[in-house]
Amino acid sequence: MKRQDSGLTIGIDVGGTKIAVGLVTPDGKLEAAARRESPATDSSAIVESIADLVEELRDTAGGEVAGVGVAAAGFVDRDRSTVLFAPNLAWRNEPIRADLESRLHLSVVIENDANAAAWGEFRFGAGADVDDLLLITVGTGIGGGVVIDGELMRGGFGIGAEVGHLRVVPEGRLCGCGNHGCWEQYGSGNALVKSTRLEATSSLLAASVLERAGGDVQKIDGPMISQAAAAGDPFAVNQVQELGGWLGAGIASLAAVLDPTVVVIGGGVSDAGDLLLQPIREAFGRLLTGRGHRPMAEIRQASLGNKAGMLGAADLARIPAK
Amino acid sequence: MKRQDSGLTIGIDVGGTKIAVGLVTPDGKLEAAARRESPATDSSAIVESIADLVEELRDTAGGEVAGVGVAAAGFVDRDRSTVLFAPNLAWRNEPIRADLESRLHLSVVIENDANAAAWGEFRFGAGADVDDLLLITVGTGIGGGVVIDGELMRGGFGIGAEVGHLRVVPEGRLCGCGNHGCWEQYGSGNALVKSTRLEATSSLLAASVLERAGGDVQKIDGPMISQAAAAGDPFAVNQVQELGGWLGAGIASLAAVLDPTVVVIGGGVSDAGDLLLQPIREAFGRLLTGRGHRPMAEIRQASLGNKAGMLGAADLARIPAK
Amino acid sequence: MKRQDSGLTIGIDVGGTKIAVGLVTPDGKLEAAARRESPATDSSAIVESIADLVEELRDTAGGEVAGVGVAAAGFVDRDRSTVLFAPNLAWRNEPIRADLESRLHLSVVIENDANAAAWGEFRFGAGADVDDLLLITVGTGIGGGVVIDGELMRGGFGIGAEVGHLRVVPEGRLCGCGNHGCWEQYGSGNALVKSTRLEATSSLLAASVLERAGGDVQKIDGPMISQAAAAGDPFAVNQVQELGGWLGAGIASLAAVLDPTVVVIGGGVSDAGDLLLQPIREAFGRLLTGRGHRPMAEIRQASLGNKAGMLGAADLARIPAK
Amino acid sequence: MKRQDSGLTIGIDVGGTKIAVGLVTPDGKLEAAARRESPATDSSAIVESIADLVEELRDTAGGEVAGVGVAAAGFVDRDRSTVLFAPNLAWRNEPIRADLESRLHLSVVIENDANAAAWGEFRFGAGADVDDLLLITVGTGIGGGVVIDGELMRGGFGIGAEVGHLRVVPEGRLCGCGNHGCWEQYGSGNALVKSTRLEATSSLLAASVLERAGGDVQKIDGPMISQAAAAGDPFAVNQVQELGGWLGAGIASLAAVLDPTVVVIGGGVSDAGDLLLQPIREAFGRLLTGRGHRPMAEIRQASLGNKAGMLGAADLARIPAK
Repeated sequence: MKRQDSGLTIGIDVGGTKIAVGLVTPDGKLEAAARRESPATDSSAIVESIADLVEELRDTAGGEVAGVGVAAAGFVDRDRSTVLFAPNLAWRNEPIRADLESRLHLSVVIENDANAAAWGEFRFGAGADVDDLLLITVGTGIGGGVVIDGELMRGGFGIGAEVGHLRVVPEGRLCGCGNHGCWEQYGSGNALVKSTRLEATSSLLAASVLERAGGDVQKIDGPMISQAAAAGDPFAVNQVQELGGWLGAGIASLAAVLDPTVVVIGGGVSDAGDLLLQPIREAFGRLLTGRGHRPMAEIRQASLGNKAGMLGAADLARIPAK
Repeated sequence: MKRQDSGLTIGIDVGGTKIAVGLVTPDGKLEAAARRESPATDSSAIVESIADLVEELRDTAGGEVAGVGVAAAGFVDRDRSTVLFAPNLAWRNEPIRADLESRLHLSVVIENDANAAAWGEFRFGAGADVDDLLLITVGTGIGGGVVIDGELMRGGFGIGAEVGHLRVVPEGRLCGCGNHGCWEQYGSGNALVKSTRLEATSSLLAASVLERAGGDVQKIDGPMISQAAAAGDPFAVNQVQELGGWLGAGIASLAAVLDPTVVVIGGGVSDAGDLLLQPIREAFGRLLTGRGHRPMAEIRQASLGNKAGMLGAADLARIPAK
Repeated sequence: MKRQDSGLTIGIDVGGTKIAVGLVTPDGKLEAAARRESPATDSSAIVESIADLVEELRDTAGGEVAGVGVAAAGFVDRDRSTVLFAPNLAWRNEPIRADLESRLHLSVVIENDANAAAWGEFRFGAGADVDDLLLITVGTGIGGGVVIDGELMRGGFGIGAEVGHLRVVPEGRLCGCGNHGCWEQYGSGNALVKSTRLEATSSLLAASVLERAGGDVQKIDGPMISQAAAAGDPFAVNQVQELGGWLGAGIASLAAVLDPTVVVIGGGVSDAGDLLLQPIREAFGRLLTGRGHRPMAEIRQASLGNKAGMLGAADLARIPAK
Repeated sequence: MKRQDSGLTIGIDVGGTKIAVGLVTPDGKLEAAARRESPATDSSAIVESIADLVEELRDTAGGEVAGVGVAAAGFVDRDRSTVLFAPNLAWRNEPIRADLESRLHLSVVIENDANAAAWGEFRFGAGADVDDLLLITVGTGIGGGVVIDGELMRGGFGIGAEVGHLRVVPEGRLCGCGNHGCWEQYGSGNALVKSTRLEATSSLLAASVLERAGGDVQKIDGPMISQAAAAGDPFAVNQVQELGGWLGAGIASLAAVLDPTVVVIGGGVSDAGDLLLQPIREAFGRLLTGRGHRPMAEIRQASLGNKAGMLGAADLARIPAK
């Protein structure tokens, strides 16, 4: 079956706190959008909310919708039908696609959210000019999506690109996944906050960040660190640089394997811009194997912000499930 | 252009010490073969040797050859034309494809040797039943090749699957590539030999291995360790198990990213069979992120031995260069 | 002033849950003993309990007591007078010695509990035949005490021998002390339990240990693991061996610095005996720097059990404070 | 036997390239000195050279010399008599003390060179005001010496304070001692040079350092890096800071064990002064366990330069061997 290149599709981003939907043109224009709270702990309520939101946008579109793509934070099976496991939602082996198709009488595909975001940036965003892209989303954890030769890499079981669980330190920090030393324990927004709090208790340089937190180490959060860093505070700058160093090192490992043309950095922490991207580039340039004997990937900031997943899912709805 | 599914092709494996060629049918049968020493330090002599060997087999084939595939240990560019860098051969930015095509008047493609071997195992060997495969070759170093959804993953610059240079220990052992902590410093045949020699100087248990080496620690080599392990020597078994542990841990990281259906273990050290595969499986099963909530790749021994690269290259010759 | 080598002294071990006191002869015989619950959260109540217990034993002794030694889990100052910081008791900069001396009209010295235990093993236990000893106590955490040339090493500020906080893994597991990678996160009883629980969720071999815990991973505790290991269960044996490997590696680092003649292993986990000591010895023998060119410390099990601290404190009471 | 507190003694520092001797007063004044090349590969020639130099100074002193102390880079036995192993000299189980005493008819003691240097700094240098001192010498490798409560810590076998072989990275860089991950592979002058050379091949910032080396990465040496750093070159400053970070981290581990009042930084690399000391202090302050609840050691630059070992050995000659 061929890609559906005309008409509008609907993209949906289902997160732990919000569901966002959009009506999207073939070239990635958002014609209409809506969002509501995510009833995260109630599996069938999420499906209902999605169905309601789709109906809403379908009315806006005058009824003509070519397909629906759902991006969800979790493991999605190879057939893009079933959510196998979604740690922050109530889904365990949930046949979301069948549920939605029977309600909506529309063709539906499900995709992991970081994969969808990678596809969004590849089609309409920071990687629109290349065929091989690695997206790294730096938020609470580290997510990833991979496009190889113009195709989304889904993996043999549909669970590829879980890059946050690359082991970067043997016997390292305990991860929520049960392993020790996963990359996201060093390079995520949560890691940034944790290590900043720890060091703020002992560093004389932390005064400015502590002041932003009203003197309470436990109230230091990511935006405070980013803002302090943007304002030139050396302690905060140093924290962000260290984060960038871990990210650049991990990206060097991934690039040895995947050899992308472009690495796109997205997720909330990427709002820090060059403050984060410079140390990433520096560590990547210093650590990529074979540097000097090979072309090297360009590292760019994501351009679609938090719409990447929705736009990517809308576009993936144009590619029929096998 | 379409895959050329009839006629014979020639596959060539160019190593640092030998050049091996074979005349191969569309379903991977080797009709004829030849090999000679590799004049590794003389760039144009290698090309000449290859051309001679091809002519030899072409005569055998009665002149009808549909294409030539060359597998070489090095970085090959995206167009499968130029060897950018081959550490053990004399090639730097060498337009091998053009050189050979002008001599042979046959279509030629060049491929990285581990990629070609992965393709061989995928088409005719241990992974012939799946679409998504990761090959790990454990020899002097660690090489890799990746097949995703039935396509060879080449990377945006043609230099993908350099899995031996995943950083597995920050600030770890120095690698020949200039980095510290690369996987192949822990999980390769060379690593096995080095660490066995080191421990043999202090372990009382090393007697049996030392005896095989005539009492000289520096004469301990890979086959000695494998044979001692196969004979049940506890010191050697322990060395091989430790190697397997490093391999399994690295494969768990790679599987988090690539999500293969099957991982094929090849290269000289894989001759140790289950002695090596069991600890690999054990570590992989203990360390793969999300275990218990996802299907897991099967880990198999390679089945084509040292012919994988040649057979893979012969088959890749059927896929026209872009 | 000289050591008081006649008469009876009283040794006291103040823990988070219990206070144990003993009346001790110059050659380490326990003439009488008593214990009660520790009112751990109430600073002055602990002092009162200690005073009561001392009076009780003083009566038993017929009033003749040459001095009192108190062993407490915490930082004790150089003058053996003040508990600077005791994480599990209610003491912060508490002048325990002055408080007790004014109540008891006896000379009192305070000592860190692991130091006191080291002194006990040195005077009356597993290290009575040597001048240079390192005690490692493996319990909830890792504690240590050091005797050098017949003297207890107290450190310039009185806070020496905090060996559990040697950093053994850069960027490693988070420790209660705020650092990452402390030895006790890898080599303590708590570490044993944590890692056994983690692996029990994925290992097929864990069945026997799980059964002891009634099928509930969270109920696995130290004694279960030790007992299963003692019964030959391969999974449990493996866990204890891994623990021993970490301990032996840390001891090799400490021995490079301190060069003890004997290393004594105490604490609750040391009850596992050779099951734990063998892997400690093995790792130590493999990792001590200069092995082959130097004499190596002997590694022995502690012989005083949980009385080491009390006996050591009683003997330290014979050495007048400066 | 008591310390000999009057008269002149002779201190000798035997290195791999030079032998330096000095005639020293009880308060550490150098009355006369001499030096010559070290016949390092000829065991008895070294002894002869030492004897000649001693005779020379004895004549200068008018024949009255109270004792001789020899500092040598190697393992010295507990009795301060025999050099067990000296990697850079020709000595293996060499009874240096007996040899020299029979030639000179003077009492002689032998001491490890870093121990002697620690004693020198403790008696006459940067630690003359304290009782508990840790000396770290940062040169080709990392050496150490420890003074506890006014006594030199020699260890149960005489081989204490080999601090350079603390394991700071499990599975880390290979050390000359046969282990992986020793501190001196990260924090020594050699480590500084190696990592600077490695990074100079890939960093655009390395231009200034490379220029000093005439464009040849392999010619970069320690003084070049120090001078570039002193001149404010960011690449060189960064290299020295990274070195300081490793040193501070290792000192934090050692201080958890030894609890010195003062840490003295000596050896050739310490000439960099605050450029090196500041990052050491920063890492130490950030990583010492219990910080905030305890007094912390002061970190100072050594004050005796390369005379520390000779002066220390001369003073140790006043303390009779047991």
